[in-house]
Amino acid sequence: MNYKNLDQSLVYNSLKKLGPLDMPFSLTKERIKDSETPIGGSLTYNWATMPVGKEHLSLFQQLSDELQLIEKYRLILSGAIMNEGEQRSVLHHLARGRVLGEENLVHVDGEEKGSFYAKELQKIAAFSKRVREASLLSSRAKAFTTVVQIGIGGSDLGPRALYHALQGYAYGQNIKELKAHFISNVDPDDASEILSKINLEESLFILVTKSGTTLETLTNYQFVKSSMLQKGFSENDVAKHMVVVTSKSSPLANSNEFSASFYIDDYIGGRYSSTSAVGATLLSLAFGYEVFEQLLQGAHQNDISALESDVTKNGPLLDALIGVYLRNVLKLPTSAILAYSQALIRFAAHLQQLDMESNGKQVNRFGDAINYQTGPVIFGEPGTNGQHSFYQLLHQGTDTVPLQFIGFKENQRNFDVEVKNSTSQVKLVANLIAQIVAFARGKEDKNANKRFLGNRYSSLIYAQKLTPLELGSLLAHYENKVMFQGLIWNINSFDQEGVQLGKVLADKVLANGEGDEILKAYMEILF
Amino acid sequence: MNYKNLDQSLVYNSLKKLGPLDMPFSLTKERIKDSETPIGGSLTYNWATMPVGKEHLSLFQQLSDELQLIEKYRLILSGAIMNEGEQRSVLHHLARGRVLGEENLVHVDGEEKGSFYAKELQKIAAFSKRVREASLLSSRAKAFTTVVQIGIGGSDLGPRALYHALQGYAYGQNIKELKAHFISNVDPDDASEILSKINLEESLFILVTKSGTTLETLTNYQFVKSSMLQKGFSENDVAKHMVVVTSKSSPLANSNEFSASFYIDDYIGGRYSSTSAVGATLLSLAFGYEVFEQLLQGAHQNDISALESDVTKNGPLLDALIGVYLRNVLKLPTSAILAYSQALIRFAAHLQQLDMESNGKQVNRFGDAINYQTGPVIFGEPGTNGQHSFYQLLHQGTDTVPLQFIGFKENQRNFDVEVKNSTSQVKLVANLIAQIVAFARGKEDKNANKRFLGNRYSSLIYAQKLTPLELGSLLAHYENKVMFQGLIWNINSFDQEGVQLGKVLADKVLANGEGDEILKAYMEILF
Repeated sequence: MNYKNLDQSLVYNSLKKLGPLDMPFSLTKERIKDSETPIGGSLTYNWATMPVGKEHLSLFQQLSDELQLIEKYRLILSGAIMNEGEQRSVLHHLARGRVLGEENLVHVDGEEKGSFYAKELQKIAAFSKRVREASLLSSRAKAFTTVVQIGIGGSDLGPRALYHALQGYAYGQNIKELKAHFISNVDPDDASEILSKINLEESLFILVTKSGTTLETLTNYQFVKSSMLQKGFSENDVAKHMVVVTSKSSPLANSNEFSASFYIDDYIGGRYSSTSAVGATLLSLAFGYEVFEQLLQGAHQNDISALESDVTKNGPLLDALIGVYLRNVLKLPTSAILAYSQALIRFAAHLQQLDMESNGKQVNRFGDAINYQTGPVIFGEPGTNGQHSFYQLLHQGTDTVPLQFIGFKENQRNFDVEVKNSTSQVKLVANLIAQIVAFARGKEDKNANKRFLGNRYSSLIYAQKLTPLELGSLLAHYENKVMFQGLIWNINSFDQEGVQLGKVLADKVLANGEGDEILKAYMEILF
Repeated sequence: MNYKNLDQSLVYNSLKKLGPLDMPFSLTKERIKDSETPIGGSLTYNWATMPVGKEHLSLFQQLSDELQLIEKYRLILSGAIMNEGEQRSVLHHLARGRVLGEENLVHVDGEEKGSFYAKELQKIAAFSKRVREASLLSSRAKAFTTVVQIGIGGSDLGPRALYHALQGYAYGQNIKELKAHFISNVDPDDASEILSKINLEESLFILVTKSGTTLETLTNYQFVKSSMLQKGFSENDVAKHMVVVTSKSSPLANSNEFSASFYIDDYIGGRYSSTSAVGATLLSLAFGYEVFEQLLQGAHQNDISALESDVTKNGPLLDALIGVYLRNVLKLPTSAILAYSQALIRFAAHLQQLDMESNGKQVNRFGDAINYQTGPVIFGEPGTNGQHSFYQLLHQGTDTVPLQFIGFKENQRNFDVEVKNSTSQVKLVANLIAQIVAFARGKEDKNANKRFLGNRYSSLIYAQKLTPLELGSLLAHYENKVMFQGLIWNINSFDQEGVQLGKVLADKVLANGEGDEILKAYMEILF
């Protein structure tokens, strides 16, 4: 396989000379219809308002072929060591199905990994069924009505975003919901607040830490435990309220402090773990395993779409290539996620981790410095809320921020109201359409303060409705887009060495500064 | 008064030639102690890890003097028309007290504005007392236990951020809390979700729209109202659950659909309205007017600190000047807010609006194009959560993102746990210290993948504890910082013409596209 840095690519050097399409001039109704790619579930990716035309697409195709992006994706799927920094395979795709087919089994550590992931999911399916049917009861012989995830980073953001995304769906479908809460921050007020809201007698806690050593998570586990002991629960009682998701090599594996243990491994990074036991346990308890299974299916459909070698038929790949054009050729350092769906309230926070932790790198996969920009800053809030907040800068600020809109024709909950001849849902979608067009076309005005330059680039991902299937494919779309961008930049999207220094220094502070006078100076003002 | 564009300033042209300090080399314990400014309440602003030394500070002082920043702030305080685009005074400071003293009254529209704001606050104090003491009851003769704010943008983000910031404080102080919820998005699932959570018989709704015409807010008001009518409340009953915050000229003023009306005016923009009736009504109901009054006092203290002409003694001004140096000289397009306090969970979302809507402008205050960058992209999540999310890019990404840390020595809720010889609060602060130092100093390593270049700039705002007083000064610090940056850039920070085009096009979509074939093409795929 050929691993070259992006700036060693001849095609890239041609691409750098190709300027952007002029949107106010180029946006036609034909272009809108011709710029679509299905990406799994009923989701469609539409790039009509991105500044790329046929010439760009042709160079994108050549770049993808030259850099062997599909072959590299196949390598990942086959279990090759594509996380070089940690010398690990990258197997999150396998957690939702065998993309290369049943004949391509992945053996790592003497284990067939597809079966391992599937078996853990079956355990979760059986366990969550017992909890939801109240055949497994709490230490007080009560049915569990509440689940609390204790985890941070990938053990928190993804599952949390997906939980919020499915609450309205479950409500609309009359699916029983166990309410979920999340404790993540080491700030003691986080755990305190959640504990003040819930009934411990009916609460099941899910402790999620792959290594079994995450400071915040272990501390919050002790926080919850000591709170329960104080309230008269015995050690034995507490265990009946605790399950763990961890790796088999973790100090928490096979512990009798938990009433059930579900396993993950080192080949699925935290930010890619929502479709493993990390997300499965919470979501299956909250909404039933069937809902989670549909989410897996949607993700699997996107994974399959990502095998397509024609870049115009491969949504995650095209999204990745356009992103690289915006970042490296047009030099745009940020990107906003604008979901016109209240259900996706925390989705941008998950994508912030997924993208920025994966591709916020300054060395290539071999540890050599690179001479081009990698991952952008990602941010976002749901529309229409964002319109009344930061859109002013997006429309009339001095920098261009590329946008990704997400929208659905139907809402999730079965209630709407008609005001001034339109429902709220229609108003929501009308605003989405209006913004896409406003950003692209702009508007002339004699008064410069009321002028919109346009050419503010966006793309759109849409479907009929946000169901678990669409949510799964949406999640995987971004995972695969981020993966392809990492492959284009020739970086390792699957490690995170940048988080280590802070850990080391925090330990030093906790050991009284260890003679580091800078740390000590801050300790004087902050302790 | 002298209004020149920034690039017409001679001092600025000197500043542009002055490179940044080298942090790993320059950061000493003396520097940490010498780089502090009090900013109201017990808050301190520390800029030790910003790349500015004595030469920078000297040029900052000259720039501030040349651009007459303090004089311009005084003009704002005096009621001058500093929002030229809308030909309005800018009076949010006055809502929390007379910064220039009792002898400088501001008369606008034939009204002494300080008394007007004070009178509305007194009405809110009296009303919230009756609700909290249960002398004013619901239509079902029940005490109100829940308040729901219906508003969007500035009527939502600021009050919501402040509510979350004070919940733990109230809990720790045994202050009775009326639980607050927020309905903002026109997505019908937003209102549906909130309505599914609350007991209507005990809920008081606060409709907040200055103009009385905000699409989302009026729609959500009708949503709530029709839901109540469906559940057997009469029109008369509904009014007993509704109060309004609006301007006297709004169609909602003097309406019998509300049991109480509190007034604001056109001289306090939405994003600056948290310390007016917009925030006062919700926060006084939730926690009592006394708590809100302390918040006002904190804001007022910051407003007074912002009068100081010595830039090293004026926190908001210095923060603004450093921000301009980062943005215009070092060309850094983003900035992250990293609050090590779970209570500030939504504070960055408020700052996103405050900063990006105020200063995301491409024309100066006279409507002429400008040739330099204005407001940056603002984003953030609380620490330590962010450490496990996007900090990878902050440490090892290819771009520098300036950071602002916020931290407190004590937590708000009176519960903590000791694990491995330290409390959670100590761990939280240890992480804060570790990150500041890690970003500034970096770390050499033979393995480039484990190397940290350092020179990632940050500043710190800290206090003993997050109380209403500190929260008020923190809020005002950012308002005043944004104001000073707007003055430096010679732009109008108080209008938002960039939100208009979207509104016009949304109306066009709702009128079936009105022959606009681009809108119609999107309507075909999205309706």
